[in-house]
This record gives sequence, structure tokens and C-alpha cells, in this order.
Amino acid sequence: MTDLDLSAAELAELEANFAYPLAVSPQVQDLLFREARTAYAFTDQPVSDEQLRAVHDLVKWAPTAMNAQPLRIALIRTPEARERLLGHLAEGNKAKSATAPVIAVLAADLDFHDELPKVFPVSPGARNAFSDEQRREQSALFNSALQIGYFLVAVRAAGLAAGPMGGFDADGVAREFFPDGRHRVLLVVNIGHPADSAFRPRLPRLGYDDVVTTV
Amino acid sequence: MTDLDLSAAELAELEANFAYPLAVSPQVQDLLFREARTAYAFTDQPVSDEQLRAVHDLVKWAPTAMNAQPLRIALIRTPEARERLLGHLAEGNKAKSATAPVIAVLAADLDFHDELPKVFPVSPGARNAFSDEQRREQSALFNSALQIGYFLVAVRAAGLAAGPMGGFDADGVAREFFPDGRHRVLLVVNIGHPADSAFRPRLPRLGYDDVVTTV
Repeated sequence: MTDLDLSAAELAELEANFAYPLAVSPQVQDLLFREARTAYAFTDQPVSDEQLRAVHDLVKWAPTAMNAQPLRIALIRTPEARERLLGHLAEGNKAKSATAPVIAVLAADLDFHDELPKVFPVSPGARNAFSDEQRREQSALFNSALQIGYFLVAVRAAGLAAGPMGGFDADGVAREFFPDGRHRVLLVVNIGHPADSAFRPRLPRLGYDDVVTTV
Repeated sequence: MTDLDLSAAELAELEANFAYPLAVSPQVQDLLFREARTAYAFTDQPVSDEQLRAVHDLVKWAPTAMNAQPLRIALIRTPEARERLLGHLAEGNKAKSATAPVIAVLAADLDFHDELPKVFPVSPGARNAFSDEQRREQSALFNSALQIGYFLVAVRAAGLAAGPMGGFDADGVAREFFPDGRHRVLLVVNIGHPADSAFRPRLPRLGYDDVVTTV
């Protein structure tokens, strides 16, 4: 017994909820990062539009350079659209997308600068600063990838499993779902509730001292 | 009164903790996304190594293609290192970094494939698949940007404010902190506790129907 006169059960509950040195509980840490896993198979439990709108309502607030928000999303829900996608996936990825109730195709808008007068009104010249196509593409790709990082965390914050996949014909997928030729498809993400067979063994992670230097 | 016989206070607490349709509480949603803001000035309250290690301990679990984890981080803590950085920042960014107790320089390791035998042992040929420098660079940039998205959310999960900045001489910063010539600096992030003057007015966000199509 401690001076606080806590029962063992109360002490265990306190410890389980003790976030230090972080500001979110171990349960949230697990849900978003530590126990979250890339899913390769899904149950038939549906994902609602309400959940997907709530995910976007979080993601939209996370920062991008000049608030440009270049990420665009095609959500695949119908069997017809799924068939059109499957034709462009690597063979090894087709089965992973077969059972997902929703598949998100994530793309960078290469003409995101057209929105800058609306989203970055503090700098009226911002749009013209991206008249150079190479600079614009580089910014579109980097900031869309940032937003994809936010998106994957937010999908988990909805209690859903995400299965990001890089193996597909990006030009083919773009022609299907972003046919204006002004988008670059970066990632395909299966979304749903994980089936029993959803996960593969955890792979090794690099340690703090492998990736961080302090100066 | 309801059939559950809750007091008004109990009902208010229930509502405040009601996450639906998400799986984390509104408080966590606010901390990580909705109320989190890019900070431009910081108090002198320190950021501990323990906090930064805990941030990495979350970020490391989030997914990257082939588990490659190409992001590398230089944490700037000493006045000398800060001075070296400031010389490469755009004029308008120098004051933002002047008060941050820690500044993270985030870079892509262009030779991340050397770690693949360790981090992706399930595919012994993975390293050779990246012998093409252009393919390797593209993968390094995309997956590092993903990891930067995770990193910014995890900094917030530590109760800290992040101030990401894109205005700097990337080659100059790389020469200072990643002098092997094999890293690309992508973002500089001021980290700490926000000062009273930390925030600018919120900028407009694109809506769900502006960025999402459903097929």
C-alpha cells in the first residue's frame, strides 16, 4: 500500500492511463502508432461516409506549406470502380484490395496553386510564385506526402485499419480516377476493419541512435 | 433526467468524451489536429530528451514502403549549432527559430537502401531493387515526407507545439548537419511550448467536397 491508499487495481488503472512523457494515454499511443498495423485483409464490416468525413475533418487542419493542401482523394466504394482499380495493381496487391470496404486513391494536385488565392489570402502573389512547373510539382509531391502521413494517422483515429500499398501503375490509376492529367497518384490505401488474417509479423525498426543526431 | 439517471455534470462529461464517429476523444482530436497550430514563438520551458525519445518511439512504428524508414533527424540544442542553422534560413524565418528550445532538421537518407537487409529481411533482393539512383531518390523523398507527417503529429502527442518551416537553403543546411552529401534536407521544425504571441490567424481549409470524390 502507498500513502495514497490506492488498491492494486486502482494503481494499475492509474499506470495504464499514465501518459508521461507524452500527453496522450498509452491507449491512444497504441491505437495511432504502437499497436497499429498495416492490414492486408478486411472483414465485411462497413466504413461509413460519416467516418470518412470525420477523418477529413481532422486531416484538413494539419499543416502544409503556404496552407496549400494539395492532396486529393478518390474513394472507391462500388464494385465497378474496384474492378477498374484492380486492373492497375501489381499482382501481389490485388487480393489485398479485394476485401477492403473502401479504398482511397491518394493523389497530388499538380495545379494546387490555383487554390492559393482562397487558402493563402495573406500573400496575394503566392499563386504566381508557383508558375514554375518544376517547383510546383516538387511542392505538390512533398506536401501531399505530408498530408498522406496525417491521413493514415487519422484513419487509425477513427478506429479503422489502413493498408497502404505502393505497387501499382500510377499513370493507369490516374487515368481512371483523375482523368484531367493534372494529378500524380502517390498511394493506394485499403481501409476497413482487419480480418483475423490481416497482419504479417512486425518488421524491425531503426533505433533512436540510428536516425537521430543531437548537436 | 434520463433513464440512466445521470446528473447534468455526468452527462456533460460523457458528451465531452464522446468520440463518435472517431475512436479518440475530442480532447485528443483537438490536441493532435483541430486545435493544434503552427507555432512561431516559444517560451523558455525546456523540451527534454525523454520527450524526444518518446516521440521517436511512436513515429518509428508508422508505415513506410518496404519498412525502409528513410527519415533522419538532426536535433539542434546548442547555441553554436543554432547559429550555424540561422545562417541558412530565409530572413523571415530567423526570428521563428531564435526562441525554440529544440529545432529538428529533417532529412531523407538517399542511401536508405543500405539498411534494407536489416529492416526488410523478408525480401533479400530489396536492396538491389534500389540500385537505380532516381528510383531510390524518389522513394527516399516520398517516404521521408510521410514520416515527417507522422513526426509532426507525434510532437503534438507529446504536448509540444511544432513550427514547420520551408524557407531555407537546403544545400547549406545539409552541409552543416548532414555533411556526407547523401542526405536531402526537407523541413526545419521549431519545437517547444508556444509563447503568447505564437500563433497567426487560422487560414481557410478546403472542404470535403473540394478534395474528395467518391466512385
